[in-house]
Amino acid sequence: MISVLKSKDLLGIEHLSPEEIVLLLDTAESMRSIADRPIKKVPALRGRMIVNLFFEASTRTRFSFETAEKWLSADSLNFSGGKGTSVEKGESLLDTARNLQAMSPDLIVVRHSSPGVPHFLARNLAAGIVNAGDGAHEHPTQALLDALTIRRRLGRLEGWKVVIAGDIAHSRVARSNVFLLTKMGCEVTVCGPPTLLPPRIEELGVRAATDFDRAIEGADVIMMLRMQLERQSHSLFPSGREYFTRYGLTSERLARANPEAIVMHPGPMNRGVEIASDVADSDRSVILEQVANGVPVRMAVIYLLLTGRPWEGEREGA
Amino acid sequence: MISVLKSKDLLGIEHLSPEEIVLLLDTAESMRSIADRPIKKVPALRGRMIVNLFFEASTRTRFSFETAEKWLSADSLNFSGGKGTSVEKGESLLDTARNLQAMSPDLIVVRHSSPGVPHFLARNLAAGIVNAGDGAHEHPTQALLDALTIRRRLGRLEGWKVVIAGDIAHSRVARSNVFLLTKMGCEVTVCGPPTLLPPRIEELGVRAATDFDRAIEGADVIMMLRMQLERQSHSLFPSGREYFTRYGLTSERLARANPEAIVMHPGPMNRGVEIASDVADSDRSVILEQVANGVPVRMAVIYLLLTGRPWEGEREGA
Amino acid sequence: MISVLKSKDLLGIEHLSPEEIVLLLDTAESMRSIADRPIKKVPALRGRMIVNLFFEASTRTRFSFETAEKWLSADSLNFSGGKGTSVEKGESLLDTARNLQAMSPDLIVVRHSSPGVPHFLARNLAAGIVNAGDGAHEHPTQALLDALTIRRRLGRLEGWKVVIAGDIAHSRVARSNVFLLTKMGCEVTVCGPPTLLPPRIEELGVRAATDFDRAIEGADVIMMLRMQLERQSHSLFPSGREYFTRYGLTSERLARANPEAIVMHPGPMNRGVEIASDVADSDRSVILEQVANGVPVRMAVIYLLLTGRPWEGEREGA
Repeated sequence: MISVLKSKDLLGIEHLSPEEIVLLLDTAESMRSIADRPIKKVPALRGRMIVNLFFEASTRTRFSFETAEKWLSADSLNFSGGKGTSVEKGESLLDTARNLQAMSPDLIVVRHSSPGVPHFLARNLAAGIVNAGDGAHEHPTQALLDALTIRRRLGRLEGWKVVIAGDIAHSRVARSNVFLLTKMGCEVTVCGPPTLLPPRIEELGVRAATDFDRAIEGADVIMMLRMQLERQSHSLFPSGREYFTRYGLTSERLARANPEAIVMHPGPMNRGVEIASDVADSDRSVILEQVANGVPVRMAVIYLLLTGRPWEGEREGA
Repeated sequence: MISVLKSKDLLGIEHLSPEEIVLLLDTAESMRSIADRPIKKVPALRGRMIVNLFFEASTRTRFSFETAEKWLSADSLNFSGGKGTSVEKGESLLDTARNLQAMSPDLIVVRHSSPGVPHFLARNLAAGIVNAGDGAHEHPTQALLDALTIRRRLGRLEGWKVVIAGDIAHSRVARSNVFLLTKMGCEVTVCGPPTLLPPRIEELGVRAATDFDRAIEGADVIMMLRMQLERQSHSLFPSGREYFTRYGLTSERLARANPEAIVMHPGPMNRGVEIASDVADSDRSVILEQVANGVPVRMAVIYLLLTGRPWEGEREGA
Repeated sequence: MISVLKSKDLLGIEHLSPEEIVLLLDTAESMRSIADRPIKKVPALRGRMIVNLFFEASTRTRFSFETAEKWLSADSLNFSGGKGTSVEKGESLLDTARNLQAMSPDLIVVRHSSPGVPHFLARNLAAGIVNAGDGAHEHPTQALLDALTIRRRLGRLEGWKVVIAGDIAHSRVARSNVFLLTKMGCEVTVCGPPTLLPPRIEELGVRAATDFDRAIEGADVIMMLRMQLERQSHSLFPSGREYFTRYGLTSERLARANPEAIVMHPGPMNRGVEIASDVADSDRSVILEQVANGVPVRMAVIYLLLTGRPWEGEREGA
């Protein structure tokens, strides 16, 4: 049993140990009750400065991080988009980062459309870095909140049959979840049209499938991915309608899974494209629990990276 | 005498009782002194989270709400515009709202160009909703700050002769003020070119007029509306110059009103279109008092909705 | 020895006395240690409201001011850009400012592309105004942080030979530094292509030069300016490459300066245009120290303007 993370950064799930994943989830679990209090605030990170650097727009993830920071009483500086900023003025990313560093932030949360940007910052800055999504590479806090959701709903994380369906090739959510779930002993199948399955995906320890009807049989967890039309340079599948026919999660398809199976989606959903509306709103769907679990997961990440010590629950309280 | 609001939301003036209006104004009055302190902050809402969701841009109203939230020590999350957000990514408003709700905000302040959006959110979310302007429907905090301004300047709210002049048909400010002032016993005339008067406006208990020179006679309160050129799909009146000639508030026209009459405008003003510059800057103008009163009015709304109990003045203090 | 500033505003360096400059630098020096604490926060300005009004985009300067405000526990309202705001709706700058004033902010930090905007606001508003850059006019906090950097690196501010090189005519950084450094007894040379030297610049007490190789001889401080291509309406010099040949700071050129000379740049840098990459990253460069010194300098400005009393160091502490 470990009580701290090894690194000053959370760049991805790939290099986390199972013990670190459990530490993060246990810490998040303990922080979760703060959401139920009338005053959702603990003084744990008072006077710490966190920079939220969202080069790629995001409302949900940014709000989740900002909420986590406020509940921990940290201060936040927010940067969104690239218009009119020093980055647009031709400054290199490294110069921008060094300038930020010179203002002594304690932690930098970064989302960027290029894979590896958080890693580059982590190598060059003293401040801790949290990857909030880098291109099609990793989105570690999403995988952690998905794991917390599975664990809370199904009682444990180990041993489940998980199907991740959709645009696997372009999905950082899929990659981070594959790393996490295989590490924790799940049996993972990724499923999608052949054009949206990355080559040699099996090397990550998963099965690849193109027939969703067969892949879903007996599944305990079904993770639907967002069709990220905005990230595809040219059309890799015919149409939303045709996609739905073959890869949409309908209640008929869901009936092939384990009767206790849960349905997940990282949002924002395209109803009628990758998921039927009635499935999204059914009692098998845990989609809003995923969002709710995002806040304590991000609190746990921020707290553990920033303090380098375990969370002591009530003793940190208001 | 009541001491709490009936609803968890403030969606409009239409369904408020006169007692609730008085409660809101009395609470705002008691909060107003905070503006005069060197340290403008009371701990009343420490640890409460308020989301400011401005789908329609606004500096004045957003700053006023944010100031009110900070004076009450609440935490704020700010969202402006639609670019690059999950709404733009095709997510439905309801899904966006449910996602927000999952992060456990205590109150959501929403401005949107479509009438009814706040009501839709209120029906679907547990969090309280404050309407900060929905299309041409209602803008209740504006009407409340106008009422506070009238009451402070003229000693009471009841019994005044009020003229609201300009683009009545497109104005949420006009609608909310009509509801409030008629409820509180004022005699209200709405005045504007026939194309800018909504049909059957008299059913709301007001008189409609197209001749401003006659309508203004003996008025105690003159509320000028902003010509919202940006909200009209095609031209409903000839030109700014011609409009000013017939409906602009000049000092000559003002001379026809009660000598003690006050001049109001919700801002931003088009000087020389709906109001002459010298009138806007005269000692009859209470336009900047309206802005100043906006902060305690919004504090009162937020405080009463969030706590469900009366404001105890000094006992809530720093 | 003085202990307070004369004005409620910091509009430029031009009208500051040497004693006021020393007071600001001494206060910033005393605040600098806050950056080294784990909890970077003093309660000095709790409950004070500061509006950051950036009509011109800026990440670095805005973050630096926001960081300074948070370290002092002030509340901030942030406004960036002009899109969709009341300014865009045709409201005059004065009406916008009066509206802001009506919400009782304690201090307004303003950046604008037109020279004189901060002065206009200062004359018309009761709130203190800090100029965060007005067109090509002044950028006083930049000159102050440059002065703090020189003083810390070279032991004192007086008597140095300073060369400011680049686009002098369009640079508010150059103007503010010329005012400050000549006041404090430095020997200042401004150097650039003839098209980028303002006429009669010598009247400000500096020497003008067009030959950088000769101007740099024996210099103690070399301040390179950013080539602000975005601010020049037509090309005043041939190309980045040719500019670099004649006015870029290379290590060969730097060898002509005093061996202990320091190299400064206000950022963001165009590497390979006005400065060679190896010079920017050398141990003679103090560019990141400038950024770091920006936070305590802005804290000192804000604190002294807002409180009107001297900073008492540890007695203000956490």
